[in-house]
Amino acid sequence: MDLAGCSLNSVTVRSASLPELVDLAAGHGFGGVGFWRDAYADLGVADAARRAADSGLRVTSVCRGGMFPQPTAELRTRIHEDNLRAIEEASVLGADCLVLVCGPAHDRDLAGARTQIADGIAALLDQAEAAGVPLAVEPLHPMMAADRSAITSLGEAVELVERFASPWVGLAVDTYHVWWDVALPELMARAGAALHSVQVADWVLPVHGQLSSRGMPGDGHVDMAGFVELARTVGYRGLVEVEILSDHWWARPPSEAARAAAEALRRIPEPASLPS
Amino acid sequence: MDLAGCSLNSVTVRSASLPELVDLAAGHGFGGVGFWRDAYADLGVADAARRAADSGLRVTSVCRGGMFPQPTAELRTRIHEDNLRAIEEASVLGADCLVLVCGPAHDRDLAGARTQIADGIAALLDQAEAAGVPLAVEPLHPMMAADRSAITSLGEAVELVERFASPWVGLAVDTYHVWWDVALPELMARAGAALHSVQVADWVLPVHGQLSSRGMPGDGHVDMAGFVELARTVGYRGLVEVEILSDHWWARPPSEAARAAAEALRRIPEPASLPS
Repeated sequence: MDLAGCSLNSVTVRSASLPELVDLAAGHGFGGVGFWRDAYADLGVADAARRAADSGLRVTSVCRGGMFPQPTAELRTRIHEDNLRAIEEASVLGADCLVLVCGPAHDRDLAGARTQIADGIAALLDQAEAAGVPLAVEPLHPMMAADRSAITSLGEAVELVERFASPWVGLAVDTYHVWWDVALPELMARAGAALHSVQVADWVLPVHGQLSSRGMPGDGHVDMAGFVELARTVGYRGLVEVEILSDHWWARPPSEAARAAAEALRRIPEPASLPS
Repeated sequence: MDLAGCSLNSVTVRSASLPELVDLAAGHGFGGVGFWRDAYADLGVADAARRAADSGLRVTSVCRGGMFPQPTAELRTRIHEDNLRAIEEASVLGADCLVLVCGPAHDRDLAGARTQIADGIAALLDQAEAAGVPLAVEPLHPMMAADRSAITSLGEAVELVERFASPWVGLAVDTYHVWWDVALPELMARAGAALHSVQVADWVLPVHGQLSSRGMPGDGHVDMAGFVELARTVGYRGLVEVEILSDHWWARPPSEAARAAAEALRRIPEPASLPS
């Protein structure tokens, strides 16, 4: 793939400062950058926006809003307020979307958590529209159901998003979370225009933990070329973001991780036919 | 739950000898025992069958057949022959079913693996019927898609089984693999009479590896009472088997793991209403 059509997520080079992150992305020819909120916590969101713009980088995502299920009304209010701040930050950055990591259940009540998630998203809709920031529900791998998100499959996420029938609630799809799903082609087609973010990370063995065991695209078991082709076939026109949570890569200099990510993306064939 | 309605899987007390396993199961009042094939490798399947019968234990499962996707025809033949031996062993044991761990993809070709799995099961049907041993497809957690099974969800397993429309191809459902699924109630209802094995293991954090990070029922995030109630509601009348792959419990004496399993099962409420 041409890196102009790709984006470097900040967590891939987690120890890089904000200036380093932007320099690495621009230096390798990435077309965009995705931010975890901690990436601009020190210098501020306005500074991050200016640096990205000055370097000609599109901001493809902000991570994260979400964490809707909470045991008390007070905590739900606090999370709601934090989500409003995240929308505001994404707006300042002109981001393609705010990624929602929806949050796990409490007291083993998955159904209750899912209700709170739907309610929590509904409560953000007006502000998302006013700020011009689409919300992107990210289905997480079922391995993360107990501590990250009760939204555990692409099918569930698509159904949740379809219920809103709003241009301000769509999807963020990462290969790492959904690659195993037998219904991937049909579900990606259903997602279609609701795809606000497409991310790639590979499944590598052994899995030594839930969160940070991911590999560079091509290093693992995911059919990356097939996935990117599928995303393009169903109409995704945004950038393809590389987001690698990896103890292995975090132990190396950010420059090395950025170079590895750039090389990995270049090795993925450009989809044969873009949608008309 | 009454332990007479429960079964102790051999892997829960992995270091126990066959005589110890049977004594532990009978001593605690379990109604049955489930065998991994290595549990009777030394003394032989006839000895295992006799010991279980002498102790009044029903054999609820044999684990495992499967591993259908193979890179060469020769390896597929070898696996087929091993699966025939597993059917024969399950027949000698009078087991309720032979559990199929279907096997992972090669070369990132999940669709191809799924075809080989369906073909591999079809090739066993006559022998399963002749031996009186139902085959039970076990959907594995998506965390195991790269190295254990391309059948990664209950929905996929149900559809696979429905295609056969045979009393000799059904399902083995373990909480650990499917608890996260938003469609669990509907899928269990669809599974219905095709449920040949119901197993329980809990999801405990942190996950330190893919295979042996499981907890005793009640120690983790799964709604065990809800799951057992659901299994009974959809008509499952077999024993509930406790199968705990756990480095934590494997490091303790088998007697301790067996006692912990017995106590954990007793703490699960007996479903309020059994099916008529």
